[in-house]
Amino acid sequence: MHVTQTPMLTHTGAMAMLAAAVAEAVRMGQPQCIVIVDASCVPLVEFRMTGSKPLSINSARAKAQTAASIGAETVNIPEAVRTGIGLATGGAVTGLPGGLPIVVDGAVIGGIGIGSGSGDQDIAVAKAALAALSA
Amino acid sequence: MHVTQTPMLTHTGAMAMLAAAVAEAVRMGQPQCIVIVDASCVPLVEFRMTGSKPLSINSARAKAQTAASIGAETVNIPEAVRTGIGLATGGAVTGLPGGLPIVVDGAVIGGIGIGSGSGDQDIAVAKAALAALSA
Amino acid sequence: MHVTQTPMLTHTGAMAMLAAAVAEAVRMGQPQCIVIVDASCVPLVEFRMTGSKPLSINSARAKAQTAASIGAETVNIPEAVRTGIGLATGGAVTGLPGGLPIVVDGAVIGGIGIGSGSGDQDIAVAKAALAALSA
Amino acid sequence: MHVTQTPMLTHTGAMAMLAAAVAEAVRMGQPQCIVIVDASCVPLVEFRMTGSKPLSINSARAKAQTAASIGAETVNIPEAVRTGIGLATGGAVTGLPGGLPIVVDGAVIGGIGIGSGSGDQDIAVAKAALAALSA
Repeated sequence: MHVTQTPMLTHTGAMAMLAAAVAEAVRMGQPQCIVIVDASCVPLVEFRMTGSKPLSINSARAKAQTAASIGAETVNIPEAVRTGIGLATGGAVTGLPGGLPIVVDGAVIGGIGIGSGSGDQDIAVAKAALAALSA
Repeated sequence: MHVTQTPMLTHTGAMAMLAAAVAEAVRMGQPQCIVIVDASCVPLVEFRMTGSKPLSINSARAKAQTAASIGAETVNIPEAVRTGIGLATGGAVTGLPGGLPIVVDGAVIGGIGIGSGSGDQDIAVAKAALAALSA
Repeated sequence: MHVTQTPMLTHTGAMAMLAAAVAEAVRMGQPQCIVIVDASCVPLVEFRMTGSKPLSINSARAKAQTAASIGAETVNIPEAVRTGIGLATGGAVTGLPGGLPIVVDGAVIGGIGIGSGSGDQDIAVAKAALAALSA
Repeated sequence: MHVTQTPMLTHTGAMAMLAAAVAEAVRMGQPQCIVIVDASCVPLVEFRMTGSKPLSINSARAKAQTAASIGAETVNIPEAVRTGIGLATGGAVTGLPGGLPIVVDGAVIGGIGIGSGSGDQDIAVAKAALAALSA
């Protein structure tokens, strides 16, 4: 089979995720950097909230890309190989918490990465964005 | 004077601009790549609409950065120096149409760059975003 | 609509395209660099034939990315803007001949770029690859 | 609120900081690399003193960027995550001593990073620069 059908995140879906992420970040009082990537790990959205950490857009991007690439949370990257894989991928693969895959009907259609807060805060914002997608 | 006060675009303002840009792109039937940068030319928003040209996120970024840097539309970069300045800035300065400065009370607080459509379409979407900011 | 269905090139399809491109290059006696990218302009295949020009893998990649991004042949990039767009995209957008979009059911699912031969040879190899996909 | 007011470091302030840093480095007999960045982590000043370590301009830049990004001293980056965050940010986030935030009226307006000396020397030079700003 040369061509197959696959689900794809639309910009409407990406916008819904972004709005939900911002709302949750505001609710918890921790401004965030938010990145959403497609199934090829290419960014669809990058957004820096006022008061977030400017450099965290980079770690948020790596988190989103990692989650989209492995189809699982970033924290699933084993501790023992994190430095090695990080180096070999130019920093794109990371085990930092806050990267979650976007999965629809069993297919990985992208990833979301959040950065600026604690690991728990980053994960909570990513989950709020994913919830908006299924809503 | 070691420190001065300056106006700064908030993420609320950036989100209003983004929403207006997407709405105008939908209205004209030309999906767009949208980038908004701050006064230091660092991206606050990068957004790729479904059906936009993936590589145009790069030219949209350059347009936004150029407009924020010179405080004027990208097309103000004189034809004769475009290649030279483009090369000397790693492609960040461009004369391509579709980059407009974000000006508040006479201060340049950032830039917006649009890419995927014709020059006129790109400029129209940028203007719709700027109108949302002043609204 | 948050998620939509889209056709996607499989590795079986990419392999069929690659084999057809190599066969056509052998037939015409001009070893080639061959790049196939997906709809997000990310490479699926990069292949250098024995005797091809090593640096042409880079122009082949740019051709494939450009064709996938604009959904048309690379030569459709207007002469007047080639340098400007090339600079603003880090060289990813090119007007060099030999880049063709991969279109299925009206959807752009990627691009193929060929480099090392004359423009006509590059285009002929790309077309042979596309023919294998529809076969 | 689409636009807010924020304090910004002027070049007069940056020059005062630079002069104080150089004077303190001369006083202690340790030539230094000195970097000052704005609130977006973009360099305002990069300065290599005669006899400083040329490559330390890079660590000084990372220190300044880190301090501006997190609004705290670089040493606040927890040991356990330094390698992971460093990789995920292309080396921009560092836990090396010698990076301090520039804070005015509770707002982070930038960061200063010093490199070439011992950690204590780097910190002392950064503090001398900050003292000149408040003077």
